[in-house]
Amino acid sequence: MMSAAVQQKQDTVALPVFAAVTLALITILSVWKLKQFKYKLVNEAGVAMFYGLLLGLTVRLIWTDKGEQCPGNTTAANEQANTSNITMVNITPHGHVGNEKGQFSSHPEETFDLQVLFNLFLPPIIFHGAYTLNQKRFLANLGSVLTYAFAGTIISCMCIGACMYGFTKLMVLLSEQKEEFFLTHCLLFGAIMSATDPVSVLGLLSDLRVDLDLHMLLFGESVLNDAVAIVLTHAITTYTQMNAELIFNPTAFLHAFVFFLIVLIGSFLLGLIFTVITALLTKFTRLHENPLLETSVFFLLSWSSYLSAEACGLSGIVAVMFCGLSQARYTVLNLSSEGRARIKQLFEVFNFLGEISIFGYMGYILLKFTCHKFEPYFISGALLSVFISRAFNIYPLSFLLNLGRTNKIPCKFQHFMMFAGLRGAVAFRLAVKVTAKEVSHTIFTTTLLMIVFTIWVLGTAADPMLRRLDIRVGVDPDENQEDRIFEIATERLDTTQGLWHSLDYKYLKPMLTHCGPPLTESLPQCCGVFARVFSSPRVQEDDEEEELCEIEAGKNTLDLGETESQQGSSESDSASEHQEDLLDGDLGLGTAPAQPREASGSSTQL
Amino acid sequence: MMSAAVQQKQDTVALPVFAAVTLALITILSVWKLKQFKYKLVNEAGVAMFYGLLLGLTVRLIWTDKGEQCPGNTTAANEQANTSNITMVNITPHGHVGNEKGQFSSHPEETFDLQVLFNLFLPPIIFHGAYTLNQKRFLANLGSVLTYAFAGTIISCMCIGACMYGFTKLMVLLSEQKEEFFLTHCLLFGAIMSATDPVSVLGLLSDLRVDLDLHMLLFGESVLNDAVAIVLTHAITTYTQMNAELIFNPTAFLHAFVFFLIVLIGSFLLGLIFTVITALLTKFTRLHENPLLETSVFFLLSWSSYLSAEACGLSGIVAVMFCGLSQARYTVLNLSSEGRARIKQLFEVFNFLGEISIFGYMGYILLKFTCHKFEPYFISGALLSVFISRAFNIYPLSFLLNLGRTNKIPCKFQHFMMFAGLRGAVAFRLAVKVTAKEVSHTIFTTTLLMIVFTIWVLGTAADPMLRRLDIRVGVDPDENQEDRIFEIATERLDTTQGLWHSLDYKYLKPMLTHCGPPLTESLPQCCGVFARVFSSPRVQEDDEEEELCEIEAGKNTLDLGETESQQGSSESDSASEHQEDLLDGDLGLGTAPAQPREASGSSTQL
Repeated sequence: MMSAAVQQKQDTVALPVFAAVTLALITILSVWKLKQFKYKLVNEAGVAMFYGLLLGLTVRLIWTDKGEQCPGNTTAANEQANTSNITMVNITPHGHVGNEKGQFSSHPEETFDLQVLFNLFLPPIIFHGAYTLNQKRFLANLGSVLTYAFAGTIISCMCIGACMYGFTKLMVLLSEQKEEFFLTHCLLFGAIMSATDPVSVLGLLSDLRVDLDLHMLLFGESVLNDAVAIVLTHAITTYTQMNAELIFNPTAFLHAFVFFLIVLIGSFLLGLIFTVITALLTKFTRLHENPLLETSVFFLLSWSSYLSAEACGLSGIVAVMFCGLSQARYTVLNLSSEGRARIKQLFEVFNFLGEISIFGYMGYILLKFTCHKFEPYFISGALLSVFISRAFNIYPLSFLLNLGRTNKIPCKFQHFMMFAGLRGAVAFRLAVKVTAKEVSHTIFTTTLLMIVFTIWVLGTAADPMLRRLDIRVGVDPDENQEDRIFEIATERLDTTQGLWHSLDYKYLKPMLTHCGPPLTESLPQCCGVFARVFSSPRVQEDDEEEELCEIEAGKNTLDLGETESQQGSSESDSASEHQEDLLDGDLGLGTAPAQPREASGSSTQL
Repeated sequence: MMSAAVQQKQDTVALPVFAAVTLALITILSVWKLKQFKYKLVNEAGVAMFYGLLLGLTVRLIWTDKGEQCPGNTTAANEQANTSNITMVNITPHGHVGNEKGQFSSHPEETFDLQVLFNLFLPPIIFHGAYTLNQKRFLANLGSVLTYAFAGTIISCMCIGACMYGFTKLMVLLSEQKEEFFLTHCLLFGAIMSATDPVSVLGLLSDLRVDLDLHMLLFGESVLNDAVAIVLTHAITTYTQMNAELIFNPTAFLHAFVFFLIVLIGSFLLGLIFTVITALLTKFTRLHENPLLETSVFFLLSWSSYLSAEACGLSGIVAVMFCGLSQARYTVLNLSSEGRARIKQLFEVFNFLGEISIFGYMGYILLKFTCHKFEPYFISGALLSVFISRAFNIYPLSFLLNLGRTNKIPCKFQHFMMFAGLRGAVAFRLAVKVTAKEVSHTIFTTTLLMIVFTIWVLGTAADPMLRRLDIRVGVDPDENQEDRIFEIATERLDTTQGLWHSLDYKYLKPMLTHCGPPLTESLPQCCGVFARVFSSPRVQEDDEEEELCEIEAGKNTLDLGETESQQGSSESDSASEHQEDLLDGDLGLGTAPAQPREASGSSTQL
């Protein structure tokens, strides 16, 4: 009895973790073997999900008699849970917690797993994506990305909501069911399904190495629309609560909108704050002398941006994305070369293992979870509306954007973007959080099925699709011929000094790194003390930093001399590669004057 | 209400993890700053514990009204837990789980944290310690290490048990308390406190860089005695259950002894199995072409050795230690040079962060846990008995070992070993698992205090102590003059072909790596098929592996020519550096013939 208790305590964590590790190993080896045989169709996410499904099935078959029960018969579930030897944590029989917190309250250990998984692996994945991004390209496409992420996600949400509302009405008519979905429930589902997933999209893009502009558009959209989807979901929930009747309520609407702005700006600022801390720490201390400490501090501070944002109820994904972008722009210049390599490798491992873990877990939960509610009409409606909404999102917005863009988004890109609407971790996380208990199980099940469908079917078909659309693949994201031409193009437009340049080159770079003009020059007289405090203490002292800044500064001039002959081909690009400024809200429709961005982007390549 | 529930779900994990990350950051920066000012007295473990204490105090002060209550008034605790907003997991009011599983059942989330912490961070720490070990030195001192680990730990356990029994009798006499500690309870405490801790000892040793032999003795003992302590604890628990009266029971004793052997051999084999899998995988596939995959697979398989052992109820620490030792001996030869560097760096980061996390958590739980039971007599008895038992362990065993060793363990080493009996994570984990509810709180509290005492007082005093004893510090574990002499010494004794050499050089190396003589030569005729299957497919094909093996083979001959003049000083070493064989049970008392070990140890340096 007593020794059994000891044994049991050991097993609680070690066995599931061991199962997860074995799953990850099998996934890695299968994908690697399959790729050796030139099966370009497999992707990690899909294979991880497949093995997760197998594990979920096994667990369910083995522990079928001890399985959990759905809410409603809470007491029975409790009595069973006492005899269960898989879980030590049970819920109270009072049912308060269970009823208030939605469907997952009878499986606290699963919610806990999920939270651990997301807090552990999501930040490195997003950070890695942002950190290794080609910054020049991203800034050049920022306007379009923001348009897709903001307007596109809202369009998607509305479209899916409307479609689903129609389908649920049809469902009631045809099957004469009592249970009715309100419009708000449909909109909630729309919000959950509206966001494409950065994890799966990144996995797909890094596997296929598509054209850089297409990469930027898809990845940028998938990261930023997460914030929009999270906020939309929250806003709809809040709106429903403030306004149980289905009349339009301006106060609730305003409330939701203000909340939206707070989440976005708050997350952005949190990401920036952690970058500033890291940059100042690496600039003003001798941390770079110890690469292990440097790596640890950098890793922990970047992770903190996600954790602190989540702890405040903001969007951790948005915070860690901005943190990654700004770390790659500023902090990286202060690091030692060994620290830089270590950080990149550390995030690479986390990114790789995290992707496998998250998708494996999703597959596992799909078969392990016993309270699924399959509504055929709802599911088929969801399937259809996902495509319809994507079409309504991409084509009209691309048309509008092309009016402003000189470097038009070609039709084949639009087709692929319409096609590559993979859903994943973010939709899953939002579906878990649905609190409206009448529809939560239907929404959860349908969301999971949509994720499996998009990842398996669309993810697998991406490679043939690209070939059919004749979009070039296998592009090296760093060493690109076009990039050079692109740099010349921006160099030649270097006539107006925009706000972004001032902020970035004249204030942020000198303050956070050892590069750029001294702060004492760029800041007004009244900020003399401030300028002296933040001035680089290592100017003319440390050779490595000097070199780095010189490489950065010299890059454009070098390219100018080198690629004079290629400028003919760059003309179509040159006019279109305008710069957007996040701060003055220009949406990249070609109206903003071009601004120079010396040395941008190159930091990640060093 | 509903939005509050959403918020709450996010906070459950993000906020504590954020607090932990902040704690780790502050610890890293403090230790680093303090070390810059030449405060040699600080060690990471102590500082992490200090900040953990501060956090625990803060949490306790803030949530004091919502705090948990000790078992006994279970229903009250339950009602409070419902209103608590820190934890989502509650226990059932039936009290079954609570009473059966000991003190921590009213804090399932804490036990869960603890398990996650140990499963996540303990394996990389021990693995890193074993992987970066100087294998030659370790093998040379193996006999003494095993003596200290086995005989020493049993002596310690008995000593502490006897001392504590005396003190508890005194306690009953003086304070006229009713509660009585049985002898088995005292022995249980003895078993918990008997093992020195690999994490804190490693932290101390790598900070101070003491003499290599002393390093081997202390680290080897601390890793192996963990297994002994775990098994002793389990055996005493089992014995108590089988034999509630305090009469000697041969059946229960035999049962405990068999269990001891099973745990030790099982853990050893599990560690070896995972090494064999990793080695064969890296030998026969082209995994080395992708360093990221290589690193991931290596990391996951090494981690699996710990997890699988824990899941089977064996000792994960022993398994992962043997896995680390054998991975460094065989698998490392199959890896690409980039993979090798990445793996080392990855484990370094985990080791660094893991140590801080575990000790920070121990400090936190000391002040956060509300059910402490301070027994002044018990605590002072423990304090005294820890020193007494250590003296009874080190001095007599060293005397006996010195009879057999030609390279005697000097008195100053003995003093330092007696002094450096740091307790830590393993004792803590064992104390958490104590199931005898009458004494569990006293044992838990006393164990935690002993850990704090040994780490703060003994850990801080280690540096002055070393100086006073005139033991040299700042030794580089890899590039050591003595090592070369040592290699010559073993080379010159290369006359008999022992069992270990045959097994290692003739069978294991050719089977698991690309080095050594072909299996077709060393294996008998009847195993022809087996030999052909495991023969290296890349012989004369891959340059890198060839080079590696050549470097290994050439090392000794190079050294021979180089250090001819230094052999005068090596004479005292040469005779004593005998080899022990784990398999034939020689305890290193100088009776085993010397065996050659070509190329051993150098693998970690490449």
